[in-house]
Amino acid sequence: MYVDKITLAHGAGGYETSLLIHELFVKVFKLKNIGDGIGLNELDDSATIPIGNGKSLAITVDSYTVKPVFFPGGDIGKLAASGTINDLAVIGAEPIAFMDSIVVEEGFPLKDLKKIINSYKSILDEYHIALLGGDFKVMPKDSLDQVIFTSIGIGLVDGRPLVDSNVEPGDVIVVTGPIGSHGAAILASQLGLEDVEVRSDCRPILPAIRIAKKLNAIKAAKDPTRGGIAMALNEFAQKSHVDIIVYEEKIPVKEEVKALAEMTGVDVYALASEGQALIVTSSDRANELVEALRRNGFREAEIIGEARRPIGHKPRVYLKTLIGGTRVLEVPRGELVPRIC
Amino acid sequence: MYVDKITLAHGAGGYETSLLIHELFVKVFKLKNIGDGIGLNELDDSATIPIGNGKSLAITVDSYTVKPVFFPGGDIGKLAASGTINDLAVIGAEPIAFMDSIVVEEGFPLKDLKKIINSYKSILDEYHIALLGGDFKVMPKDSLDQVIFTSIGIGLVDGRPLVDSNVEPGDVIVVTGPIGSHGAAILASQLGLEDVEVRSDCRPILPAIRIAKKLNAIKAAKDPTRGGIAMALNEFAQKSHVDIIVYEEKIPVKEEVKALAEMTGVDVYALASEGQALIVTSSDRANELVEALRRNGFREAEIIGEARRPIGHKPRVYLKTLIGGTRVLEVPRGELVPRIC
Repeated sequence: MYVDKITLAHGAGGYETSLLIHELFVKVFKLKNIGDGIGLNELDDSATIPIGNGKSLAITVDSYTVKPVFFPGGDIGKLAASGTINDLAVIGAEPIAFMDSIVVEEGFPLKDLKKIINSYKSILDEYHIALLGGDFKVMPKDSLDQVIFTSIGIGLVDGRPLVDSNVEPGDVIVVTGPIGSHGAAILASQLGLEDVEVRSDCRPILPAIRIAKKLNAIKAAKDPTRGGIAMALNEFAQKSHVDIIVYEEKIPVKEEVKALAEMTGVDVYALASEGQALIVTSSDRANELVEALRRNGFREAEIIGEARRPIGHKPRVYLKTLIGGTRVLEVPRGELVPRIC
Repeated sequence: MYVDKITLAHGAGGYETSLLIHELFVKVFKLKNIGDGIGLNELDDSATIPIGNGKSLAITVDSYTVKPVFFPGGDIGKLAASGTINDLAVIGAEPIAFMDSIVVEEGFPLKDLKKIINSYKSILDEYHIALLGGDFKVMPKDSLDQVIFTSIGIGLVDGRPLVDSNVEPGDVIVVTGPIGSHGAAILASQLGLEDVEVRSDCRPILPAIRIAKKLNAIKAAKDPTRGGIAMALNEFAQKSHVDIIVYEEKIPVKEEVKALAEMTGVDVYALASEGQALIVTSSDRANELVEALRRNGFREAEIIGEARRPIGHKPRVYLKTLIGGTRVLEVPRGELVPRIC
């Protein structure tokens, strides 16, 4: 497929995004990491810079473009802070400092901007994260739809980072709770379905990762944002060269999210979560991990599947359906939901 | 002045931006630095994180919104790479790694995006800077005017950073070359003055800083971007509690930039440079520094003024004019030129 213009699919976080990122960045840049740190080739949730004594700084950036800026369950500030913490957490880092860069449309209400920044601040305060500085720009009326909030996170990794390529055959996949709620909330807002009661799950998942680290029951982790668990599981599979089998009956999804997905024809497994994590652990630690998560607020944590030696030429993700069938859970394609995060 | 909506002046990098940044960030956030590193209170060109052995990592972020995306002398990719290097350089850091976050409007030509990214890459290659990763988003047609390019720079500082508050009475201000060319080029493009031949000076000023460091002839530095040298000199004055006197006859400005400023009524000292630095050094090193700069490609480097003990209650910047008068060079106010960087 030859394209000469950027499409919404290029930004949806699925198949087309991956292709474009490889074409524009991975194939083009020469220097892609510092020492044995994580960089552009790995395309993990954070990059790392080794700083000696087995420690690294983890660094991540995301530009949030979510529409609407205020949504059921949060706003763009809460989303930016949560997403940044989550990108650090899933690599095994403890967040220490953030920077931000906000671009606002001329005429945007000052009180809304204060509300957004206050949401961001509340989460930084809660996790004792410093804000070191940032940038602030204004674009003339009609040249930007409201606001883009870019958030940069810096964390400290003690020991080896939890990379996506750490998954081995036999490992178990745990989810911390019901998936797809953020995507469903944004989709409902964008479609004007105000009677659909679905709230974004947007929040830091660092507490779950800390539980798993304390138990030494974590080999890899991902927050399933753009492209949902379909994308996240395929990234594990491709980077670790394993097949992954997940069981539909085990995957927690809220009833209202399921209903909205059916109504709109969107695959629930491609819908973004912003407050859940997939945690990969060895099979002998999985039950202990799930119990610890459930005892500590993640009441719907579940073992949803496992990794296996690939049966075909290409690693794949398989979904065992409720009715007993098996379907390949592909990397999501197409436009999905625009401006989800 | 009470405002309830964001205005273009809030993003112009002058007086209104400073007020807003203090109100929205500096007064609001609690944790603002890591250890004795530079953070939100200092509002310097980069923040720093101490990593032991007298070393720090410097970190900076800027979101580039320049319009037009391609301009005489460069494009948004070259500008982003140069600006990021410059923010690290003026704090005394050597750049080591970058990350980027690009938000593009649906329908943007892929070949233009490649051109932009290639401009960014060329500068990273030249300075041996790794690209560690980033983010990529697409916004639907008409919700963003073309592209916002956010660039994050990470550098290494060996020893004490060159902060804006290092200037002492008696110190000398050196400029590496003619000022205001970037602002003038963008202004001419935006006004459709295609017969005005003025090119942006956009480029890394790291070579000039390296010369000054090698001579041990640098106490502080700034790249005079938004708000021009008027803003940069006032930041030195306020943060170091010194008056600064600069001499109009000494300040290099290209003829075509002067002409454009006169024609449009814009103060030439408030026009952005993106390829010049102000370097502060002690009076006994200034001549040696200027000679070394001139020998190494900065042929129009000049001593433009000096710092003095403040004569009034508030530190100020004074301009000795060509006709022998003295005017206060105020912090720029108002809208200046939108989307300059």
